[in-house]
Amino acid sequence: MTALAQKLAAFGIGAVAGDAPFDMMRLSLLDWAACGIAGRDEPVARITRGLALEDGGTAEASVIGSPTRLPARAAALVNGAASHALDYDDTHFAHIGHPSVAVIPAALAVAVAEGTRASGTDFLTAALLGVEASIRVGVWLGRAHYQTGFHQTATAGAFGATIAAARLLGCDARQMTQALGLVSTRAAGLKSQFGTMGKPYNAGIAAANGVEAALLAARGFVSNPAGIDGPQGFGPTHAGAADAGALDGLGTAWLFQTISHKFHACCHGTHAMLEALAEFDCDPATITGLTVTTHPRWLSVCNIPAPETGLEAKFSYRMTAAMALLGHDTGAIANFTDALCADPTVVALRDKVTVVADDSLAETAAQVDLTLVDGRVLTARHDLNAPMALDVRAAKLRHKAGALLGDDIATRLWDVTTDATGPDLAALGALLRGDQA
Amino acid sequence: MTALAQKLAAFGIGAVAGDAPFDMMRLSLLDWAACGIAGRDEPVARITRGLALEDGGTAEASVIGSPTRLPARAAALVNGAASHALDYDDTHFAHIGHPSVAVIPAALAVAVAEGTRASGTDFLTAALLGVEASIRVGVWLGRAHYQTGFHQTATAGAFGATIAAARLLGCDARQMTQALGLVSTRAAGLKSQFGTMGKPYNAGIAAANGVEAALLAARGFVSNPAGIDGPQGFGPTHAGAADAGALDGLGTAWLFQTISHKFHACCHGTHAMLEALAEFDCDPATITGLTVTTHPRWLSVCNIPAPETGLEAKFSYRMTAAMALLGHDTGAIANFTDALCADPTVVALRDKVTVVADDSLAETAAQVDLTLVDGRVLTARHDLNAPMALDVRAAKLRHKAGALLGDDIATRLWDVTTDATGPDLAALGALLRGDQA
Repeated sequence: MTALAQKLAAFGIGAVAGDAPFDMMRLSLLDWAACGIAGRDEPVARITRGLALEDGGTAEASVIGSPTRLPARAAALVNGAASHALDYDDTHFAHIGHPSVAVIPAALAVAVAEGTRASGTDFLTAALLGVEASIRVGVWLGRAHYQTGFHQTATAGAFGATIAAARLLGCDARQMTQALGLVSTRAAGLKSQFGTMGKPYNAGIAAANGVEAALLAARGFVSNPAGIDGPQGFGPTHAGAADAGALDGLGTAWLFQTISHKFHACCHGTHAMLEALAEFDCDPATITGLTVTTHPRWLSVCNIPAPETGLEAKFSYRMTAAMALLGHDTGAIANFTDALCADPTVVALRDKVTVVADDSLAETAAQVDLTLVDGRVLTARHDLNAPMALDVRAAKLRHKAGALLGDDIATRLWDVTTDATGPDLAALGALLRGDQA
Repeated sequence: MTALAQKLAAFGIGAVAGDAPFDMMRLSLLDWAACGIAGRDEPVARITRGLALEDGGTAEASVIGSPTRLPARAAALVNGAASHALDYDDTHFAHIGHPSVAVIPAALAVAVAEGTRASGTDFLTAALLGVEASIRVGVWLGRAHYQTGFHQTATAGAFGATIAAARLLGCDARQMTQALGLVSTRAAGLKSQFGTMGKPYNAGIAAANGVEAALLAARGFVSNPAGIDGPQGFGPTHAGAADAGALDGLGTAWLFQTISHKFHACCHGTHAMLEALAEFDCDPATITGLTVTTHPRWLSVCNIPAPETGLEAKFSYRMTAAMALLGHDTGAIANFTDALCADPTVVALRDKVTVVADDSLAETAAQVDLTLVDGRVLTARHDLNAPMALDVRAAKLRHKAGALLGDDIATRLWDVTTDATGPDLAALGALLRGDQA
């Protein structure tokens, strides 16, 4: 039997067809960088960066929010934590994980290191293979792994980060297999850290673990090549389901194609509702009632009826619905404030919202029924898994980047990340560091 | 309910009574350093050190086998891997783990860092609290955790390393609790790496994880303080048994007191036999037969009947018995060679050895029955858990250090580590680095 690591390594070192979702990878790179730069002053980013800067070391890779370059492993740790700090980055629902925050920091740190000096296209290709691999490993680990308490962003992510880093280092199949065997003993991350700095840190450790495993394997480190799926391997010891079909079509079909981007700076459970509400264009003064129908799983997640803080607002159907209908951009983090929670106009509309559950809806879907003063009822539905035209997604992500960073930096970031010839890694590094133009 | 981390933190920051086993800690420090220096050129040590030196960074802590000092986290990683490379370091059978290789590298790296500059006694105290905590956490996780596939040296070890590092950094109870909550999401290490470089690397990651968690907590990192034993904490997600009595007597009774040191450079399963054989003093030419009786669990571990390589010899009752009876020091790594496996005198005696199993023996015990040419049968038994007078242990460890390092360095190491006023950390660092006198 071929060990999982060998199959993944064959994918990781292989050629990539031109019809692979490079366009989507560019958009995830844009979104990752926007979230990371916007998160640079979050406490978890400041603390992790502060320690890494104190440790110092060879100036290799750019660090978000600092002019000082650091060794690849350290940069991956800091940038992973910073880019997940706002919890506003991309999600894949097949395994419930955030692929970009684990993989891109690893790929970027290694790509620009002395001795690698990869092209923008090499970097983008490695990142794409890494995120795809992380989703596949996540599916292989399955829902049981997640439900047991493991944070797939960190665990599955470490394997994707390893593949991206090892490819950029020029590892052969044997070395990449060794790197995957090695990261099997280091991959970690628990959901019980949710609500603390430990959650974004988990993304950082995935990225750093991947970089370290790849660098050690490139130097001849010998691990157990069956460390993922062999006896007492990562899967068997971490409640992995060992989904036999998880790797089907690897290299031709791309699960990453169905990556989900956040367009609202609040809990993902509210997003289907907010997308449905976006179909309406009516005077808020004419609204007499709104009924939100959602899958029951979300009622324990984001249904705070009368939030009093900006953080609570992010987990409130009623509040975010009122914000959207009144034109308070839910894509702007700065709009989630304690003050807005107390605003009489917002509160009045919020109190007209009723939330009901219906388990016949998909987890990713919501329905909204808006009653107007003239008696009319407007209805809309949205499913986050519904296909979105690439240009629509691109426009939304560009708008999001502008809301996060201001138009000037967002435009520069857009130009760098969406360049069809591959990102200019030097220019991207300057934007991440925050160099003055 | 008080979370486990809070109880451990209270222990970790507390005062330590004068009757705590400081003498045993000094001997484990001696043994740890001897194993580490002897392991400095092992492939896992060279590779891990090579990467860390390339990363570089602030010159804080000594690295085994290099004149260059590195940041504490990096030094802990390298020194943990190097000191476990020969698999000749101390073991605690209550949880089956190697406490010193995870904890001492973390404590030493932080003790000498700028801003800490701990005294030798402070370092020794922190290390003692760390190893005790790692054993307690190991007992709390239980045999199920180990049998599932987790390498307690790495997992339980990370918590002990965290406590030692956080104490030396002057963390208060809240910070140490946060550090323990944080390391809960990073602690990792699998037994499936046994037989590869991944095993000693696991000791390194435990030490490095502890240092990083402590340094981040000292900077204000916020984690889940119930990250060890709360819902979806480290224990519940890692097959932990949650042994309710694991912390009984913490601070007054010391499980570390029953630490086991290796006096033979071979599989621990052969050690009870070798200790029993040491009671004989007879001319090998007069031996006509030897029967070794051992617990059946070892037959699949160290019963290679006719080993051909030095590595195989380490896992052979028959070979190691013949070596011991013929005066080939089983404490000297250099004696385990392919050539000795083919030596006619050794092979002739080896072939007179019969191994039998008896499950009424303790796992840590063996019996030897030696038949002489005159018909006499000499019998001896040994149990590794039998108490050993401290001066006997000290003399054995000093002899072991001499066999590993030569008498000159062993004497200097003895003087530094067993100094009753606490180790001279500068002198210890010089010995680890290999500075010329």
